[in-house]
Amino acid sequence: MTHLRIVFLGTSAATPTGSRGLSATAIQRGDELLLFDAGEGVQQAIAKAGLGLNRRMKIFITHIHGDHTVGLLGLLQSMSMTGRDKSLDIYGPERVWELVKEVRRILGFVLTFPVRFTKAYSGVIVDEEEYVVKAARSEHEVDSYAYCIEERDRPGAFHRENAIRLGVPEGELWSRLQHGQPVIVGDKKILPRQVLGPKRRGRRIGVSGDTRPNSRLTRFFKDCDVLIFDSTYGDDQAERAVENLHATAREAAMLARNAGASLLVLTHFSARYTDVSPLLFQAAEVHPKVMAATDQMAFDIPYPEDW
Amino acid sequence: MTHLRIVFLGTSAATPTGSRGLSATAIQRGDELLLFDAGEGVQQAIAKAGLGLNRRMKIFITHIHGDHTVGLLGLLQSMSMTGRDKSLDIYGPERVWELVKEVRRILGFVLTFPVRFTKAYSGVIVDEEEYVVKAARSEHEVDSYAYCIEERDRPGAFHRENAIRLGVPEGELWSRLQHGQPVIVGDKKILPRQVLGPKRRGRRIGVSGDTRPNSRLTRFFKDCDVLIFDSTYGDDQAERAVENLHATAREAAMLARNAGASLLVLTHFSARYTDVSPLLFQAAEVHPKVMAATDQMAFDIPYPEDW
Repeated sequence: MTHLRIVFLGTSAATPTGSRGLSATAIQRGDELLLFDAGEGVQQAIAKAGLGLNRRMKIFITHIHGDHTVGLLGLLQSMSMTGRDKSLDIYGPERVWELVKEVRRILGFVLTFPVRFTKAYSGVIVDEEEYVVKAARSEHEVDSYAYCIEERDRPGAFHRENAIRLGVPEGELWSRLQHGQPVIVGDKKILPRQVLGPKRRGRRIGVSGDTRPNSRLTRFFKDCDVLIFDSTYGDDQAERAVENLHATAREAAMLARNAGASLLVLTHFSARYTDVSPLLFQAAEVHPKVMAATDQMAFDIPYPEDW
Repeated sequence: MTHLRIVFLGTSAATPTGSRGLSATAIQRGDELLLFDAGEGVQQAIAKAGLGLNRRMKIFITHIHGDHTVGLLGLLQSMSMTGRDKSLDIYGPERVWELVKEVRRILGFVLTFPVRFTKAYSGVIVDEEEYVVKAARSEHEVDSYAYCIEERDRPGAFHRENAIRLGVPEGELWSRLQHGQPVIVGDKKILPRQVLGPKRRGRRIGVSGDTRPNSRLTRFFKDCDVLIFDSTYGDDQAERAVENLHATAREAAMLARNAGASLLVLTHFSARYTDVSPLLFQAAEVHPKVMAATDQMAFDIPYPEDW
């Protein structure tokens, strides 16, 4: 059981409000932190959330707009000033790296740790033992990407009663079966599927960044346990959502329903909404399992079978 | 009586903490806002303080370090997105302008209003009808400046009983005398000094930025009503203050005392101090009129004769 937790660090679109900072969402998975976007103020939001800067970390940037990227600068600088020694991976459109390089030159700060930048592309951009991160082109004014973290399937539940019935002695042989390897007991070959239930699906969390909803993203976010989607506007600004290449909360909910996403979390609210509850109600008419993010809101993601 | 108010927007050095943002101090004078430094998060701190972005405004940057400048980027971008139409003046070392220009190019944002940049130099850099802003080289790792806003002297108090005794009729002639012009009543010439008290000194607020204390700054901040000074460290880190070209709270207090500053406000605290009261006590041993700034702390500055 790897602990998986989402922490919303900034939930305002374009400009911050007194209570909402600019775009940033952290996904803690075990001891690793995956950060999606780094709006201005993200390093203070990380401090508030008690997440710490010297840890295994990957940063995914959806697009170059300043309200999603400027926080990267202070984050890198503070990591250096506090003596970070772990390498850091950053993924995103190419200009993100240009921003980091140019600002480093002008501010004259030194990085105390290696930073690897990977230009985002549609496909699997992170391939770890326990999870992958996929990217897909989204639909905004500039080169932009949506991301989805997908845990690999885990072996099925171990049925000890079957193992005992089949005469497999407890200990190393059980462990080998649990890890998917066949074992020999006497003259019998015992296969993992004789003692294991069906494979259990890993968890999936989707992060849209700024985008219009579209069918490509509906496919991309298929069966997400949690989908965090652009909800810049309410029904009252549906035309503006089309013009500015954002989504309304209702459109986010339609996409979530069509993708079969379990929980939809609305975020990236226009600063015009001091109260986002109308947006929440509009979305809930379409997809009842929906939440409106607030800064510092955090919750754990259970495995699908435990929902 | 022009309203003069200081609002502390960010009071942490180098890296933010959960409760302290990066360097920024606003001085509201009438309907104008003078902003000293623009650390990351300043636009949200301005929103929290309810100060508003579309107003007469000048920005003074003490030095190029990221924790004093990165907030400028989001500030300019948000001003544009919210349709600011008033011109904006920025003062600071040359690299500040390079930062703004390069980041604008990379992020691709358009300014909706004119921005005038003035490279800081030692001397009077702003010369307004009612006040000046002076700059002086400070002593830090990079090209850096301290600033001082000084209101021009106001005419002395008007003694109406003298005017009546001298036979000056109430109305326009009183007004001319109040504005320092002589008037003729019958065959007598009445001079302003016959009806006015001594000139009243304007208010002075000094902002040190990051610096070692030195005798040049002591002279520069002479007779400040409020001096806002680098207090990165306590006595425990006095050597580090010398190495890193900052000041301890006690050193700030010694400078304030020698400059004859009325009120000293300590700010720019190292994130190592979760409780800055020891720094306050150390400073108070030297200069009893001292406060430790906190984010969103604000107070009005009365005229010197009203302290």
